[in-house]
Amino acid sequence: MEETVTLSKDISKEELLHRMRHSCAHVMAQAVQSLYPGTHLTIGPPIEDGFYYDFDSSHRFTPEDLEKIEQKMKEIIEGNHAFKCSWHTKEEAKRFFEERGEKYKVEIISELPEEKISYYHHDNFTDLCEGPHIDTTKRIKHFKLLKIAGSYWRGDEHRERLQRIYGTVWPTQEELEKYLHHLEEAKKRDHRELGPRLDLFSFQPDSAGAGIIYWHPKGTVLREVIENYLKETLKKRNYLFVTTPHVARVDLWKTSGHWDYYRENMFPPMEVEHQPYVLKPMNCPGHILIFKSKIRSYKELPIRFAEFGTVYRFERSGVMHGLLRVRGFTQDDAHLFCRMDQLEAEIMQVLQLTLEVLKTFGFNAFDVKLSTRPEKFTGTNENWDSAQAALKTALLNVGLPYQIDPGEGVFYGPKIDLKIKDCLNRQWQCSTIQVDFNLPQKFDATYRDSNSKDIPCVMIHRALLGSLDRFIRILIEQYAGLFPLWLAPVQAILLSITEGQNAYIQTIAEKLKKENLRIETDLRSEKIGYKIREASMQKIPYLLIVGEKEEKNQTLSVRKQSGENLGSYSLENLLSLLQQEVLEKR
Amino acid sequence: MEETVTLSKDISKEELLHRMRHSCAHVMAQAVQSLYPGTHLTIGPPIEDGFYYDFDSSHRFTPEDLEKIEQKMKEIIEGNHAFKCSWHTKEEAKRFFEERGEKYKVEIISELPEEKISYYHHDNFTDLCEGPHIDTTKRIKHFKLLKIAGSYWRGDEHRERLQRIYGTVWPTQEELEKYLHHLEEAKKRDHRELGPRLDLFSFQPDSAGAGIIYWHPKGTVLREVIENYLKETLKKRNYLFVTTPHVARVDLWKTSGHWDYYRENMFPPMEVEHQPYVLKPMNCPGHILIFKSKIRSYKELPIRFAEFGTVYRFERSGVMHGLLRVRGFTQDDAHLFCRMDQLEAEIMQVLQLTLEVLKTFGFNAFDVKLSTRPEKFTGTNENWDSAQAALKTALLNVGLPYQIDPGEGVFYGPKIDLKIKDCLNRQWQCSTIQVDFNLPQKFDATYRDSNSKDIPCVMIHRALLGSLDRFIRILIEQYAGLFPLWLAPVQAILLSITEGQNAYIQTIAEKLKKENLRIETDLRSEKIGYKIREASMQKIPYLLIVGEKEEKNQTLSVRKQSGENLGSYSLENLLSLLQQEVLEKR
Repeated sequence: MEETVTLSKDISKEELLHRMRHSCAHVMAQAVQSLYPGTHLTIGPPIEDGFYYDFDSSHRFTPEDLEKIEQKMKEIIEGNHAFKCSWHTKEEAKRFFEERGEKYKVEIISELPEEKISYYHHDNFTDLCEGPHIDTTKRIKHFKLLKIAGSYWRGDEHRERLQRIYGTVWPTQEELEKYLHHLEEAKKRDHRELGPRLDLFSFQPDSAGAGIIYWHPKGTVLREVIENYLKETLKKRNYLFVTTPHVARVDLWKTSGHWDYYRENMFPPMEVEHQPYVLKPMNCPGHILIFKSKIRSYKELPIRFAEFGTVYRFERSGVMHGLLRVRGFTQDDAHLFCRMDQLEAEIMQVLQLTLEVLKTFGFNAFDVKLSTRPEKFTGTNENWDSAQAALKTALLNVGLPYQIDPGEGVFYGPKIDLKIKDCLNRQWQCSTIQVDFNLPQKFDATYRDSNSKDIPCVMIHRALLGSLDRFIRILIEQYAGLFPLWLAPVQAILLSITEGQNAYIQTIAEKLKKENLRIETDLRSEKIGYKIREASMQKIPYLLIVGEKEEKNQTLSVRKQSGENLGSYSLENLLSLLQQEVLEKR
Repeated sequence: MEETVTLSKDISKEELLHRMRHSCAHVMAQAVQSLYPGTHLTIGPPIEDGFYYDFDSSHRFTPEDLEKIEQKMKEIIEGNHAFKCSWHTKEEAKRFFEERGEKYKVEIISELPEEKISYYHHDNFTDLCEGPHIDTTKRIKHFKLLKIAGSYWRGDEHRERLQRIYGTVWPTQEELEKYLHHLEEAKKRDHRELGPRLDLFSFQPDSAGAGIIYWHPKGTVLREVIENYLKETLKKRNYLFVTTPHVARVDLWKTSGHWDYYRENMFPPMEVEHQPYVLKPMNCPGHILIFKSKIRSYKELPIRFAEFGTVYRFERSGVMHGLLRVRGFTQDDAHLFCRMDQLEAEIMQVLQLTLEVLKTFGFNAFDVKLSTRPEKFTGTNENWDSAQAALKTALLNVGLPYQIDPGEGVFYGPKIDLKIKDCLNRQWQCSTIQVDFNLPQKFDATYRDSNSKDIPCVMIHRALLGSLDRFIRILIEQYAGLFPLWLAPVQAILLSITEGQNAYIQTIAEKLKKENLRIETDLRSEKIGYKIREASMQKIPYLLIVGEKEEKNQTLSVRKQSGENLGSYSLENLLSLLQQEVLEKR
């Protein structure tokens, strides 16, 4: 028995979109099988912003094929075919797909727990499918196929290699075009392309290994500017910087509990004189050891240890992705040791600091979550209650809207997570503030109270940017490589029109460098238009052009990377223009 | 046949001292065996500044025993016994020492290649010994036993545990006392004692492992000041800073040759997804990878990459020693890539830089060695000759006296090593400048010349301070913890006489901090004398005391750590006093 799909009048926009994406995947599969007979189907789900289908085909798909497939899909869509659903027993289903040579469908069916199994049909195409779908193919005419990627059956690299085709579909042509423009923008900003092109960093997978970053001079300048800004900001708030090693005995991680709960994310141990050592995946135990190196009085607290700590974590080579997911990265990490009665004030200070820092980098939209006590937890109910109350009050006082994620706290304490929204409206997890009742007890990290009694500290783990490397990735994409002047690795470049100006340019360059500006010169005997284009491609904020006229008048012709011409500047005026912009962190 | 030792009239002072030390070791062994019968002898050589003897004894030696042994030695020395020598066959010797139960001597004899074996005798004592010795015990009356230490037979921890007694002996009482005073001074300055007491660093051998340094906040400030000074100095000379990871695939170290020639100094590899990875013992390969990340024109050279690179090397737990010998340390490393015709100018710049930097830290006496082509080498004779000529010319131009160590260059190129002399006249290897023809070829690191031909670079490895950690150790001992103001982790401390001044002190502290001075306050209600003593123990250069009178007059009472009283200062005058001192790096 077949049932035709109908759509309720009050179907939500999200639900409709979800169904459109799913149905479009079916239409694509139909088109592919009609163009490339013998192609086997696997799965084809809707995903965020679109859909994909994984095919097992002897034909190797090319970008040109995508156009052909699109053309075929358009024909099918125009046919205005209704989507219909039917139910079958497991045996029927197996036989049906076996007859059609769809071995992957048969494998899926034999693992399904249900006795009754549904197909969806349209036109002459039938797929094993739970639905739901739209009513007719005509609804999905604003679609586009995007790219081809490799994948494995069941995501398992030991199984069959498949070809995945991604596509997207939208209710209107305007929405489709807006989305394609968004994709275009994201691609232009892709840090994996921009990073090496701007000579910021590279990966050396063949010689040094995957997911391990080499920061080139310009990338190192960027890191240094960020680190110096953070250092200055933190020191004003009485943070103390420490330096802890990258290896320690496994015993340390047994004490901390990481060896039991986090080992699969760690690099394997190294045996040194019969003692296993391991790369640090976290900075916390090291900071605790320094805290414990002497007796701490209640009067000394809070003590705030900070470190740009480089940690190493194991990631499967399949999941690594540019600077986003790597095997070694540097956290802007800190651990605050305080008394319970200081917790609220500390959290508030950290929240204020977080907002100040993220806004300085140009981010003003945040998504804040407070995660509360899970079912399994350490510490007393009383401490959890006061900690959660402290976090809420702090959020309220800072005026930061937040949502509660009930029961989503870590077992050792409640936490606040903060995501930033970038210019393409994408959200990225950066800051995290976690209360910890557990680690101070494991390490016996205590303070001496006014009665000379030793009391376990409350510890706060906090990172503002999270990973410095990943944050730089966000910055690269947010600014499409054209960083605000205070961050730009090269802030201005001096371009000569003829060789005659070289000496004058060198003098100007030296003067600007003395004022702590980051300056390059391009004195090559190339055409000025070529030099301007190159500097602009390198995303240098200011281009300072010097010809005969400028030298005679002791001026510079100032141009922004965008092409905007600011006209003629004296060195003095230029200096104050640049310094003001750096100072205002624009 | 016995032969009495006689001393030639023109024996050098060094030779005489060497013999005295050796003879004193025999006298000590005699005293020990007479006081503690059953003690077995092993070996007792002369060493720099003295001697030791390793004993296998059921008696556990204490510091009080040393006095008893010294007393016994004095009696023997007063006996004015002559040293005599005799020769024996191997069989005779074995029998002789076997009869006396001296099994270690028997073991030594059976491994000796010679057929004729010598003993030395004095009084009733006989030792298996090659000599030479002095004529009579009377010469060694200005001696002192220093300490007891544990050791192993043959330095092998799987063999018998021994007790080592150290002593020293000098020709005159004055020289002995001078040496003991020197030892006292060195002990007072010992960084292993001062470092933790001044809260600069700690080791955590039990939890984190031996030879791995935890830098506390004050030590981290010290590192930061040094790093910032070096960064500024290097950037002026167009060095580019890079950041390279602490792990890489073993393959990288195979390409560089470290895997074949340096593996025993490396941490063991870690297996990640069937690929062995290893901690970096050197920064060079990483810098070369960045150099190779794009085509370099001959016009771009020299390119100078610098990094404060933390490296990890395997050291046996027995040889580790404070910050001097560790398993992880940070080099102020740089690699210069240049053309052969740029080598001399580069070396000269490095030499000038080295002198400027070391003098800034207060070192003015240097010992310079130029090591030339060894028997086995890579590269052409022609390149070696020009490189050696370039090094010599550079040394000459800089006006630095040097000695040549013929044939002591590394196989890959000639080098200059520079030692500094500290205030106790001890020499420490710091700076090294090595020319390298080998690594650029192994990695195919080339530049494109004016004919578009790819030519291998010449590479210079250079470190000014060597290891930052070891250099800080030298600084701690050189200044006995009282660092020059520009380096001091805490530059001044404000001390209140009564609680009444707290608000005033806080204001002053804030103002001083705003001027980038590193300030602490001590507002505890302790007696001012106690607070002064504590601050002075903490080696804080300036103590700023504020009582009622000072607050009324808006002044501070200024005192140096040494106790010197500088009298009353206005905030303004104090600021310029401190800033001037920081600026002059005194």
